[in-house]
Amino acid sequence: MKLPILLAAATLVGGVPQTALAAVSQGAASHDASEAASSTGSTNAPLFAAELERTQAFVEAMMGDGVVVPVPRDPGGGYTHEQHKRNFRAIYNAGQLFRITGDQKYRDYVREMLLAYADLYPTLGDHPAKANQYSGQIFWQVLNDAMWLVHAVQGYADIRDTLSDADRQRIDDDVFRRAAHFLSQESVATFDRIHTHATWATAGVGMTGYLLGAAAMVERALLGSDKSGQAGFLRQTELLFSPNGYYTEGPYYQRFALLPFLVFADAIERNEPERAIFEHRDGILLKALRTTVQLSYRGYFFPFNDAIRDKSLRTAELYEGVAIAYGQTRDPALLWIADFQGRTVLRDSGALVAQDLDAGLAQPFPFASLLLSDGPDGDQGAVAVLRQGSANAEGEPATVLIAKNSAQGMGHGHFDKLAWQLYDNGNEIVRDYGAARFLNIEAKRGGRYLPENETWAKSSVAHNTLVVDETSHFGGDADLADQFWPTQLHFSDAPGLQVTSAEIDSAYPGVSIRRTLLMPTLPGLEAPLVIDLVRASSDDAHQYDLPLHFSGHIMEYDFETRNNVAARPVLGNDNGYQHIWIDAEATLDEGKGALTWILDGRFYTYRFVSDGPLGVVLGESGANDPDFNLRREPMILLRAQRDGGRDGGASFASLLEAHGSYDGAAEQTLDSRSLVSDLDHQQIEGIDIIRVTLKSGPQFVIAVSHNSDPDTQHSVTLGGDVLAWTGFAAVIALPGGEN
Amino acid sequence: MKLPILLAAATLVGGVPQTALAAVSQGAASHDASEAASSTGSTNAPLFAAELERTQAFVEAMMGDGVVVPVPRDPGGGYTHEQHKRNFRAIYNAGQLFRITGDQKYRDYVREMLLAYADLYPTLGDHPAKANQYSGQIFWQVLNDAMWLVHAVQGYADIRDTLSDADRQRIDDDVFRRAAHFLSQESVATFDRIHTHATWATAGVGMTGYLLGAAAMVERALLGSDKSGQAGFLRQTELLFSPNGYYTEGPYYQRFALLPFLVFADAIERNEPERAIFEHRDGILLKALRTTVQLSYRGYFFPFNDAIRDKSLRTAELYEGVAIAYGQTRDPALLWIADFQGRTVLRDSGALVAQDLDAGLAQPFPFASLLLSDGPDGDQGAVAVLRQGSANAEGEPATVLIAKNSAQGMGHGHFDKLAWQLYDNGNEIVRDYGAARFLNIEAKRGGRYLPENETWAKSSVAHNTLVVDETSHFGGDADLADQFWPTQLHFSDAPGLQVTSAEIDSAYPGVSIRRTLLMPTLPGLEAPLVIDLVRASSDDAHQYDLPLHFSGHIMEYDFETRNNVAARPVLGNDNGYQHIWIDAEATLDEGKGALTWILDGRFYTYRFVSDGPLGVVLGESGANDPDFNLRREPMILLRAQRDGGRDGGASFASLLEAHGSYDGAAEQTLDSRSLVSDLDHQQIEGIDIIRVTLKSGPQFVIAVSHNSDPDTQHSVTLGGDVLAWTGFAAVIALPGGEN
Repeated sequence: MKLPILLAAATLVGGVPQTALAAVSQGAASHDASEAASSTGSTNAPLFAAELERTQAFVEAMMGDGVVVPVPRDPGGGYTHEQHKRNFRAIYNAGQLFRITGDQKYRDYVREMLLAYADLYPTLGDHPAKANQYSGQIFWQVLNDAMWLVHAVQGYADIRDTLSDADRQRIDDDVFRRAAHFLSQESVATFDRIHTHATWATAGVGMTGYLLGAAAMVERALLGSDKSGQAGFLRQTELLFSPNGYYTEGPYYQRFALLPFLVFADAIERNEPERAIFEHRDGILLKALRTTVQLSYRGYFFPFNDAIRDKSLRTAELYEGVAIAYGQTRDPALLWIADFQGRTVLRDSGALVAQDLDAGLAQPFPFASLLLSDGPDGDQGAVAVLRQGSANAEGEPATVLIAKNSAQGMGHGHFDKLAWQLYDNGNEIVRDYGAARFLNIEAKRGGRYLPENETWAKSSVAHNTLVVDETSHFGGDADLADQFWPTQLHFSDAPGLQVTSAEIDSAYPGVSIRRTLLMPTLPGLEAPLVIDLVRASSDDAHQYDLPLHFSGHIMEYDFETRNNVAARPVLGNDNGYQHIWIDAEATLDEGKGALTWILDGRFYTYRFVSDGPLGVVLGESGANDPDFNLRREPMILLRAQRDGGRDGGASFASLLEAHGSYDGAAEQTLDSRSLVSDLDHQQIEGIDIIRVTLKSGPQFVIAVSHNSDPDTQHSVTLGGDVLAWTGFAAVIALPGGEN
Repeated sequence: MKLPILLAAATLVGGVPQTALAAVSQGAASHDASEAASSTGSTNAPLFAAELERTQAFVEAMMGDGVVVPVPRDPGGGYTHEQHKRNFRAIYNAGQLFRITGDQKYRDYVREMLLAYADLYPTLGDHPAKANQYSGQIFWQVLNDAMWLVHAVQGYADIRDTLSDADRQRIDDDVFRRAAHFLSQESVATFDRIHTHATWATAGVGMTGYLLGAAAMVERALLGSDKSGQAGFLRQTELLFSPNGYYTEGPYYQRFALLPFLVFADAIERNEPERAIFEHRDGILLKALRTTVQLSYRGYFFPFNDAIRDKSLRTAELYEGVAIAYGQTRDPALLWIADFQGRTVLRDSGALVAQDLDAGLAQPFPFASLLLSDGPDGDQGAVAVLRQGSANAEGEPATVLIAKNSAQGMGHGHFDKLAWQLYDNGNEIVRDYGAARFLNIEAKRGGRYLPENETWAKSSVAHNTLVVDETSHFGGDADLADQFWPTQLHFSDAPGLQVTSAEIDSAYPGVSIRRTLLMPTLPGLEAPLVIDLVRASSDDAHQYDLPLHFSGHIMEYDFETRNNVAARPVLGNDNGYQHIWIDAEATLDEGKGALTWILDGRFYTYRFVSDGPLGVVLGESGANDPDFNLRREPMILLRAQRDGGRDGGASFASLLEAHGSYDGAAEQTLDSRSLVSDLDHQQIEGIDIIRVTLKSGPQFVIAVSHNSDPDTQHSVTLGGDVLAWTGFAAVIALPGGEN
């Protein structure tokens, strides 16, 4: 499908590059009847009508306040900051309303607003609240100036051809040329980065170039300030996403990056369709959008790395992204997302989404198990997502396991190599803290990242990962961490036994860590069963801590504890340990134990066994938190003191079992206690043998050869039985186990 | 409306009392066409069809297991206990299915099950797991035996006239006569109590009497074992509910009591309509049902006293109750509840509910502000419910304040005189802990009340009430507490300024406490504003603690604290104090402060002022809890050390302000900080003057005369201004406050 050109107005005035003119005619020619009927990008479909109403309410309220363009003064969250944010949304939205309704008042408002900016802009220099070299002019950060331009240029496009020559010239020159010059030349360091901040900048400058017919501006945006192609928007699409469309900072920032990527791509497609931007790099931009959706559970993004946990698919970036992608693909699964969002945008593609949704064309989004490679060439580790279990009404499986075997992901990355998370029954069961930040809440350091983001949220012990000698991975050094990543050894989404396995030998000097997570389905047990195998190898003696951060209320555990009931001490002094209260401790000579908790009417048992004695800590986050900045969440930490030597290191095998139900309404409780009676683990010639015994009698072995070749045969003799299988792993029912 | 007789089958065999026969003919005569069409109590309406399907699934699964009637052995939660529970539901439901479908297999199943009980019953003596004198025969508690009978007799009624004489005689004699004899004669101590356990027993025995045509049995059920009317079902309807239909144990047990009350009343109405049971005591039973619904927020019951917090309107007791009450009243608001429940029952009244709901007859339930007196004569205190704010889609106001000025409510009562709770925006903001119990969860002491129910959940400091000298009200003595209650001084549901005021002088010797809660609407502030005035008077020196248990994450507070960040001590040794961790402490010489927290996208500020210096504790529940039985929830505790003497005592004036919003999706935060700049309080000649100053300038006085006469004029001179008003309280805008 070809959409009418967003920036069509630009083509009516002088200096238009040939490519843009070509795009106009092509766009016009491709209109089919349904689009012709909505040439202003409008429709009466309910989703669109609601969006129109919502937008009108916002713009009318803004118009009621008059045009307010204050001299820049405040940092993020402050008055002038928030006012300029409101202004760019108002310019953007009022332009849309003028296009759709033809009502002059919207045009006049955009015109007056932009003339006020034309008065202001030539007076601007460094922002008074500038904090570093990345300062803006309207805002304290150049990023915000770029966001202003991306939005304002779209609103301007909707009214530009209605202006007098004098007004148009003033706004062109004193607002948009100045803004583009500031971003692409005065702030060239940002502009030429391979970074999402540069994506916002190049998008703003490029779209301004199309509108003003400034070919050089477009070229700088696409190819970098020196037009070499080593920087700029096209290069960003090549380097910022992995071949699977995964963005290295993680889902939270991937979402944020999508808006300028897709909005600018949309403009490129209209103005220079011969670039086939949406086919570029095997369709990476549309792939990135779908990958973003895959990185969510019940609409909420997996919160690993710096992430605000309440970010969901219901976010402005994705309203734009879904509409643009649907315009390109007509993929009915995107309508499903729009339906979940309950929102769309006031463009042709938004109208199309609303119409087709209203026509009942939506299909469930195909949430799937998948391995998302990291790094531009896909060789910097990966994020593995295992989905299993009965789907909910929207077709999304109940259980999702995430293995974070990806690269550090720059400054917003956490020190959590090989960490995992688990969702089940609508909830996050094995959790990731996300970022320590209350976005936009003034009382919490102006809404910025809190000190505890460094001291707790990024630390290794705050994650479900192995911690050696009470230090974070890479010594907590982000620059060092950026140079290394795990190796993904195996991945299988085979139903009945999904597997991910990865290892890293750079997180700690002289320590190699391998983690294999398996999701087998055992007869007699409810899905999901998770088997977690962690093996650390080292020639030196170390202390190995394996924390599990869970959600729920402790029901019982099967070991003796020393409880700190009347005075609560702290686990350590640094690297996140200072934030952990110790509720209880235990020493398990056999290295075995189990802990059961309840969450939302379902029970979960974490059962573990190590290759030697274990210490256990039942703890809670929130110590050394004088400003009440942290959430208080429970954890269990397994501690193994192990010698070094040829076979030095530690192994942990554990099993997470969801079981039973508690129904308060019916006063009915089922299987509140684990259905497993024993878990044991041995390594036989490099093969891991995990034996699970059910209380009802049957015994199963999960055998892991660690050999990815599907045809290699393996066998192990266990208590007289010969277990034989091919491939990486297998579930084997032991004979005679039945009672 | 007259429903077809549930126990109609009973009237076809010998020994039917005259009243029952009369009821049959009257019932039959009153059938209108729509009822005749559903003489089996059936309909195709969706709600009913779903119920039928659900019931069939349950009964078929039970039938698949065969008839399993084990010899009683286990206590609550154990195997034989749960099996007999399943059995009585299966008898009840299979009888219904036979009546509706006519399928013989259901009849055969009920017959076989009851014949198995006929084998078992004569062999029964004291239950092996008997714990006290209230032991049953099938179950460890007589209460459960009564529940068995209430259900089983209804299932039996549906098949009894299809049995051979021999079978009927055996089941009559060896099951039902024995069960009735056990409950009404062997367990006469329970049977003659004025207590809901007796309600279950009398309901079971009375319904058995109707079915077997045993007039004496019915008489004992209605009038007590000696037939004097001093005990029995009728007396229970007179003594267990207040004139407003409030049951003294609180909403959780009120719900539980409703089933036998309404089911037996329904049987009385059919068999002896001349008793006009539903008109008895001004319609107390239907009133009690509506009052139960009024004691809920978004479907969940207010959790005060012993209460499992996840109990909602979606509970079996209320499916029965709503259907029976709708059959009696055709009140369209009851359909609204049935719709919320998504459930009904397989009787004529359930069919009617389903049909009328399908026909769109439902109307929103009229949730309202109301004062519910406690005690059989309504003179033992009261529960005040203030509702305010914009209604949600279901017509329920957003803000609800509960003032618990009621009597102790027997053994399940908590020591929380004059306590309060607040709901807003869908959440419990100022909370009540409820019971310390994990119902039916074996690992938690077999699902029974936990030790922490006595040591924490019932204690005064666990509630939002005044605690004197670190002891609970009435010294924590339930027998003593049952003899006293607060006096409700004033109540007003006037829009714009709702008020409740009460006092008690018996909770602590020599201390009189008065609490006045007001809900004013102030221009410039969002609803709800809550003003809380607590005044304790005593001739002696005391320590006064005023805890507030809130839900949310602390954002900020405006006082200096000493924080326990690396070792966390406990607040006290006894009376609940041993369960409170101290996070931070403060000393406020001016006795003034404010604390802000966030919950679910909304901010709340608690602002307080006292008549002298205050200590402040920021704490959390969960200390001295070796079994992880407690939830960990935040609290703030204000502490006033005050001298005695003529004007001895302490006053606390506080203000709870809901403000602003946090929208993670839109990344928009509004008014995260309090809109109030100051709160002060003075008492002038017995009149309380609370002055609220907004940051935007305006000042308001909330003046409280404590004189309920609406026409009495009051005036006070404040800083040169004369404030004049009539009645108990007023909101007065001060002149010159605007900025």
